[in-house]
Amino acid sequence: MSKKRVVVSLGHDALGYTTEAQWDAVKKTAKALADLIEEDYQLTITHSNGPQVSMIHKAMTELRRVYIDYTPAPMCVCSAMSQGYVGYDIQNSLRAELLGRGISKPVSTILTQVTVDPYDEAFYEPTKVIGRYMSKEDAEIEIKKGNYVKEDPGHGFRRVVAAPKPIDIVEIEAIRALADAGQIVIACGGGGIPVIEQKHALKGASAVIEKDVIAGKLASDLKCDELIILTGVEYVYKDFGKESQSPIARMTAAEAEAMADEKEFGEGTMLPKIEAAISYLRKVPAGRVIITSMDRVKDAIKGRAGTIITA
Amino acid sequence: MSKKRVVVSLGHDALGYTTEAQWDAVKKTAKALADLIEEDYQLTITHSNGPQVSMIHKAMTELRRVYIDYTPAPMCVCSAMSQGYVGYDIQNSLRAELLGRGISKPVSTILTQVTVDPYDEAFYEPTKVIGRYMSKEDAEIEIKKGNYVKEDPGHGFRRVVAAPKPIDIVEIEAIRALADAGQIVIACGGGGIPVIEQKHALKGASAVIEKDVIAGKLASDLKCDELIILTGVEYVYKDFGKESQSPIARMTAAEAEAMADEKEFGEGTMLPKIEAAISYLRKVPAGRVIITSMDRVKDAIKGRAGTIITA
Repeated sequence: MSKKRVVVSLGHDALGYTTEAQWDAVKKTAKALADLIEEDYQLTITHSNGPQVSMIHKAMTELRRVYIDYTPAPMCVCSAMSQGYVGYDIQNSLRAELLGRGISKPVSTILTQVTVDPYDEAFYEPTKVIGRYMSKEDAEIEIKKGNYVKEDPGHGFRRVVAAPKPIDIVEIEAIRALADAGQIVIACGGGGIPVIEQKHALKGASAVIEKDVIAGKLASDLKCDELIILTGVEYVYKDFGKESQSPIARMTAAEAEAMADEKEFGEGTMLPKIEAAISYLRKVPAGRVIITSMDRVKDAIKGRAGTIITA
Repeated sequence: MSKKRVVVSLGHDALGYTTEAQWDAVKKTAKALADLIEEDYQLTITHSNGPQVSMIHKAMTELRRVYIDYTPAPMCVCSAMSQGYVGYDIQNSLRAELLGRGISKPVSTILTQVTVDPYDEAFYEPTKVIGRYMSKEDAEIEIKKGNYVKEDPGHGFRRVVAAPKPIDIVEIEAIRALADAGQIVIACGGGGIPVIEQKHALKGASAVIEKDVIAGKLASDLKCDELIILTGVEYVYKDFGKESQSPIARMTAAEAEAMADEKEFGEGTMLPKIEAAISYLRKVPAGRVIITSMDRVKDAIKGRAGTIITA
């Protein structure tokens, strides 16, 4: 039997929020990924980078405060740095976990950019909350810079940026060449660095691409057999958070779409996962989407846990 | 005629020292690289990262001072971040320059680690000066942390780390797969993240691998036809800096070795380039090494400028 080609999308839980926490979290993640590899899955891995890019952005801002000879680092540069950082940790943990199981397999990280449309309607009404809470004073500074902020009453203010739809994965040919060679690739970290085409150049955009949405795009570009989205819950739920909450074990893309239309799924949390699933299945109708937690993925691929979506 | 496979090693001049300076410097570098591609060279690119990793390390240290909930980022993590940052800039500038010339070719960056021997003699006497000048007080703090510093009278103190020999390029199979597919690859940035094997894991080492030495290793691993080392001067010189200084247009590896034995080349500047050339030519005797400046490389590949070393 030939290997099943799959994109695995890792959320915040898989990575932790500080350098030390990440170190530990990634080791646990590596075990779950190695389990999939032992089940003959050929992996391409995407991951979130919210806490990491926020940490780096803060650090670069502090640097500028102390050393005036440094110029500010734009968000796209911080995002590139975060891909290096997170990729480094994931590839090493996974490599060590695999070697511990007697499996020698190349794992590498491809720095990835994703083009977005400057006229994407997302730019007119930014909705994606990023970074940590800030004070009212800091929020006012952000607004003066032309950035958007949103108040979470009782907690403080956070920045909001646009979450435009991805158009093209710029480095797709490099990712495909490695996947075709049977190698494990980490790509599109943090949704990819969002860029806008300006003539021949690519310019960093003030935006974030939903990592699950790009995982779906990557899975369809690579014509993967499966798309596995790992998150903090075991299932997609109907009536999530209500008394009538119930897990969904199976659904079709059409059913998922109907539920999305009825605002069944949380914006910025479950909704992008569902959208990723629908868009992948539209392009790869024979494919399968699994949404579950890291702890349950080994059972989920055998149909014994998690939510499975098919066309 | 089939393409000539080559590793190009870029020095500090090719990159600049701040985010803004890098932006501009890299555009100029892209022109020189695109010239080589138009001459049917198939490139794998390595680059230095001294100023960049130093900037990131400073930033992460400042971050920790201001936000106590962040844990310190070790040098290996800063190095991974710098590969993301520099790779992002080089690949975008090169991509834009090539598109401007009507050439569409995939360019990508592979995060790269390089194993070193924990018993390498370099660890006993660190010689590689890194980072900016610091005060006596800051130097004493570094010494207390177990780090080495070196005084440059009249200027201040700088950190020195070991520059061990590279053993293996961990991600070589990914780099080779992309090169074999005819793609342009940026790899081994800053000499690669130096790591030590500890059972199955790779642990970041407090060291720097000379970027030219790793360029030579990469060129021999990939069995490249040429190794091109770009630096601040047009030639390797005999009696460099003396009145009798004279440029060397051609030399053999044996001649280079003899001159190196006579301490003809500056440690940490020209010497690692010569060592890289010798070690590459030992493994690829049919190969050719060019050491020259960015401005002269177009002429150098035609034998009209620069220093050419052959076996």
